[in-house]
Formats: sequence, structure tokens, C-alpha cells
Amino acid sequence: MARSSLAPLLYADTGRSADQLYFSRVGVHDPFIAFGVGRKRFTVQSALELGRVKKARTFDAVLPLDEWRERAQRRRPAVKAGVAEIIAELARAHRLRGFRVPDDFPAGLLLKLRALGLRVEVADGAMFPEREIKTAAEAAAIREGNRLSAVGFTVAEQILRTARIKGRSLVYQGKPLTSERLRFAIESAILAEGGRPDDTIVAGGDQACDPHERGSGPLRPHQLVIIDIFPRVVATGYFGDMTRTYLKGRASEAQRRLCATVKAAHGRAIKAVRAGVDGRAVHQEVVTTFDTAGYKTEHGKNGSTGFFHGTGHGLGLAVHEAPSLSARVSMPLKKGAVVTIEPGLYYPGLGGCRIEDVVQVATTGVKMLSKHPYTWEIR
Amino acid sequence: MARSSLAPLLYADTGRSADQLYFSRVGVHDPFIAFGVGRKRFTVQSALELGRVKKARTFDAVLPLDEWRERAQRRRPAVKAGVAEIIAELARAHRLRGFRVPDDFPAGLLLKLRALGLRVEVADGAMFPEREIKTAAEAAAIREGNRLSAVGFTVAEQILRTARIKGRSLVYQGKPLTSERLRFAIESAILAEGGRPDDTIVAGGDQACDPHERGSGPLRPHQLVIIDIFPRVVATGYFGDMTRTYLKGRASEAQRRLCATVKAAHGRAIKAVRAGVDGRAVHQEVVTTFDTAGYKTEHGKNGSTGFFHGTGHGLGLAVHEAPSLSARVSMPLKKGAVVTIEPGLYYPGLGGCRIEDVVQVATTGVKMLSKHPYTWEIR
Repeated sequence: MARSSLAPLLYADTGRSADQLYFSRVGVHDPFIAFGVGRKRFTVQSALELGRVKKARTFDAVLPLDEWRERAQRRRPAVKAGVAEIIAELARAHRLRGFRVPDDFPAGLLLKLRALGLRVEVADGAMFPEREIKTAAEAAAIREGNRLSAVGFTVAEQILRTARIKGRSLVYQGKPLTSERLRFAIESAILAEGGRPDDTIVAGGDQACDPHERGSGPLRPHQLVIIDIFPRVVATGYFGDMTRTYLKGRASEAQRRLCATVKAAHGRAIKAVRAGVDGRAVHQEVVTTFDTAGYKTEHGKNGSTGFFHGTGHGLGLAVHEAPSLSARVSMPLKKGAVVTIEPGLYYPGLGGCRIEDVVQVATTGVKMLSKHPYTWEIR
Repeated sequence: MARSSLAPLLYADTGRSADQLYFSRVGVHDPFIAFGVGRKRFTVQSALELGRVKKARTFDAVLPLDEWRERAQRRRPAVKAGVAEIIAELARAHRLRGFRVPDDFPAGLLLKLRALGLRVEVADGAMFPEREIKTAAEAAAIREGNRLSAVGFTVAEQILRTARIKGRSLVYQGKPLTSERLRFAIESAILAEGGRPDDTIVAGGDQACDPHERGSGPLRPHQLVIIDIFPRVVATGYFGDMTRTYLKGRASEAQRRLCATVKAAHGRAIKAVRAGVDGRAVHQEVVTTFDTAGYKTEHGKNGSTGFFHGTGHGLGLAVHEAPSLSARVSMPLKKGAVVTIEPGLYYPGLGGCRIEDVVQVATTGVKMLSKHPYTWEIR
């Protein structure tokens, strides 16, 4: 039996598993069973979810969990029927000899299913490789995510513009401007527009040199501030992901050269993207740009400086998904894939700069799925 | 070798895995390796996270991913070193013969580790059973989560009080009051106080009869509105989880009796909780209260009516965790466990009512970890 002929099986909630949301197209917050038979999709739901999931009409059948638990229990009265026994019962009823599951399928459940005599194979690579290629509707959903990111930047820029410099402080509405206050303004605006903005990064000065540091405390004048906004569109589950870097006050020559170099790398990377080009080659454009400009990357005991992350990643129902644009992975970009382009440079003392946009890979280049000005020096 | 002597191993991000956050105590948004050797805890981090995770000082050692990848690669030059090969290399360096992993450990990784000759056992039950018993600091963190929920109720009540009834509509600030507007006001207030309010339920009328329906569209006067708020405290990762039911306008006798019965069940369930009592017995208190009052539970093809969910669940770094208070699980409640008590009744046509608070199990009763009035009829 060829691998692909095994029925797909998922056991996850849709908040944590993008595969489950891709397959189910309805949000359910506790783990549940979903599987495919031919072109038909089935799920098993508790009384708590049954009505709502039926109404969503995304499955060919929504089976009641209690009923299938009882069926499984009758078949094996000796042991308490759990998820594995219910799945075995479903397999029997649908004459399925086995299942194909994603790499992150729960290990405990896989072992139990195998112990029950089912053939369970872990997908070699992506569970749904088609997830990598975005349809027009998916591209539109990602574009909406990026529109929400841009809403956040607009709010941030208004606040930075209004804030006043008092010595080493930024004062906004009579109080020191902090990462927290700026993040709240950004996230609140995104919430109001139907997004869920988790873990927005607003990091200034040396904090921004840890690229995943969310940022806290007072923002300072004349310092670079990285703002990275990756909201989820509540209605569709798709993400936006954009980064801009700002500075309130007067930039030094070194800061200007840093930002100009990152912007140049960003532009060259986007120009390098088209169907068939190796993701590693796109990353190499960034590396070369930084090298040529004299920006070194070094790895120390307590962290790295320079450019020490990938140039980009796939974006969709997960913030990080296939494909990857980095030194480690060699793989041609596929037409229709959606990726971020986000070069950055980080030097404690000087600060960090990252610029991130989202593009869809096309035959001759890219379609931009994000849009927002690059103005960064705010007086 | 006794199961417990195997070193714990995790491979997950802290947003999705409460076990990983419990073990790591620092937020990292992409999956990473963490493991224990004796009382020491180790993690492997990419250059992107290394500095930040070191600064958090929650691990005894933070190992650089690149370096360990190279070591793994040198040992097996023929295959590209991935996570499994890196873990095998770490096991060798720390003289570990195997690992204990959580039930939801990625199946693909478990199979690869076993293929590399490592002994990998899935924890029988909870990975960290001590997670069920909350320390004073954890109880305080959950109490803070519930304070954020209460902030949400206060905002919702203010809006419902201010809203005016115009025929079949509620009008607030000149526009129809919808689930979305009320949810935004609640979530925005929680954001401002340091919480992350995901999937807040604001469901009126028949929508509320699907207990996990988030709610959408106009809210109506004289209808029951269920508001269920379960924010995460960003600083600690712990959740609050509270529910109140409201009605703007004038309640019917049937609605009043419904709400009074749910409130009575809620009170009786809380009174029944103490260390050593079976969670199922607490659930049974609710079932009996509803039965005695004549509220029937029925399961139909397209959903259920009456009381068709558990009475409560553990709360901590996950919204749903052990223990469970339901008909299906018989298990004595442990001193220090934190659980929700959330009876509800749902009848399309009449509406739904749920009241939820959070308690910590004590020797002689409970400590309340949530606090907010039960006023529900708003004129």
C-alpha cells in the first residue's frame, strides 16, 4: 500500500495545530479526532462542540463522541475506552487498515494505536504539502493579516510622533512612553479590527538585539526600536507578519548606515525571489549585502551579533511554516508559496534593525502581500 | 530501571505546551529541546534565543544549537543532523540511556529517537504530576488571571447598564450593541492590565446554547448573554477562567428560575469540594440539583440540551488541565489542586446560563481564587 493511500488522521485542537485547522476549517479548542476517507472528511465531537461544528458545515459528517465511546467500550469491556480505542472502532467501521498522521501527532496515542493493531505511519515531511501553496483566498487572508500589522505601525508612528523628548525620556500623554504602553496601543487597535495580536515585539536599544525579546520598560530617544507585529485574523486563522524599525529623535550616522544596509538587503532579497530559486540563495543575497557593507556576524558565549537568523519563513495558518529561507535548507521556492523577507542586524550599543514584509512567490518575481511605508526616523 | 529514573525530555514551544513552560519558565515561541539530568535542567537554543534564555536564568545550562548540531553532524556525516540526532548526541554527552517524554511528544521524533537506539518512554499519565498541585505563587498567579476576568465583567456590566433598549435592539454609543463590540471592550481592558484574552465568549440567546460558540452579531434585550473570560497573564503564563451570565432588560420567570437553579448548583458544587472528595461526586451534586429542579438533559442528532458538559477542570498554565470534575472520571481531588466550578443549563428558545468560579482544594473545603458579584439582571 502506498503511503499516500493511508487515511489522514489528526488528533489536536485547532489553536495549536495548523494542520488540524487546515483540515477542519472550524475552531475547536480541545483536541479532537478528525480523519479522511477518500475525499470525505469526518470528525468526532463531544456534546459540547457537536452542534456548533455541525453548523459550520466543513465536515461531511460530525459523529457524536459519546456514541462512539460506547461502541468502543462494548467491543472491549475490560479496559476503559479512550481516544485510541475510539479511533480503532472508527477504523473498523470505515474499513480502514491504518492512518497517516503528522510528525507532531501525540506519541502516546500513536503507540496505543499501534498496540491495538492499527497501521499508523508518520507523514514524511508535511502532512498536507498543499498547505505550502496558497490559493487566492489564502493570499487574501494573509494580506488581511498584514493590513492589521500595518494598522499597528500606523498607531505606533502616531504615538512616536506625538511623544516629546525630555532628556533621556520619551513622554506621551504626561507619562513615560514604555514598550508596554506602545504595545497596548498597537494590540488594542488590532483587536478592534478583528485580529488577535499575540506577543507583539516592541523592543528598544539593546533589548532589540535579542530578536525575540518582546521589550519592556521605558523607550529612549535616539535609540532604534524594533516593532514586529504578527496578528492572527480571527475570522480565518491566517497570520500577518511585518516588522518595522523606528527611532524617535535624531539618528547617528552609524544608525543610519545600519538601517540603510538592512533596507538594501531587504530589497535585494525580495528581488531574488521567484519560483524555482533556492531559498538558500535568497538568504545568501542578504548575507552578501551585509558582508560587503562590512557588517560582521559573530557568535559569543552569551549570544550573537550581526545577522544570525534566517531571511524568512513560510506564513499561513502558522506564523512559522514551510518553506524556510536560510543557510541550513536548500530547496527551490514553489510558485504560490508565501514567505516573509526579514533581514536584520543587531549590535548591542548601536541597536538592532529588522525590516520584514511578506511576498507570494510568482513565476517571474513576487506579489507583495504586505504594504506599509519605511519611514523610520521620527523627529 | 524504574520509569521515574529516565531523564525528562521535552520538544515543544512554550506557547503550545504547558509542560514545556512549567519546565522552562521562559517563553520561547518555536519548538526547542529541554531535558533534565538529576536535579539540573538543560536546554538547547538557537542563536536567535540563546542570549534571552540565558538572561532568564531558569536553566542550569543553555547550550548553543549550532554547536550541538555540528557535533551530531560529525558523529554521523552521512545523514543531515536533525533534532533527533542532536538529542542522541546530548544523551551520549550526559551518559543518558533514555528519556521519559510527555504523552503529546511529537510522534515522528519519538520514532526517530528509538531508531537511533535510545530508550524513550511515554509518561504514564501526567509528565509532571506535581503540576496539579499549585504552590502559593501559582495560586496567586491564577488569582491574578481571575482578577483580569473580573475586569472584563466590570466593563461588560458598565456597557450593558449604559446601553438602551430600542425595540429588539440594544443601542450603545449610537450603534447596535453586538457580541463583537462587547468582546472588544472586554479584551481591550484586559490587554491594558497585562492579560492576553483569547477567544472570550460573548454569546446571547440561542448562540449561548452551544457552550463554546464565541458569539457574533447583535445582542438582544431580554435575552440571556453568557460571558466566559479566560485570559492568560502574560507575565506568568497562568490563566484565569470565569463565567457570568447577564440579561439586559426584563427577565421572564423561566429565565429567572434557570439562573437561580444554576446558581444553586454552583453553590452546592463548591460546598462539596474538599481534599479527598471524588471529582465525580462534585459533578453529581450539580446533576442532582438540576434533576431535582426538573431540568432535563437530552442528546439529539444536532446537539444536546440541558447540562451536557463537565462541572469543572483543572486550571493553571493550561486552560484545561488535570483534574477533571465530570461523570467520566473518578478520582479524589488533591489538596492544592485548582479547579473551575462551572455548571450550566442550555435550552434553545429559553437561552443558556453558566456561572463559573475557580477554587483551590483545601483539607476542609476550598479557597476561592476568583471573585466577582453575580448580579445578572440589568435594567
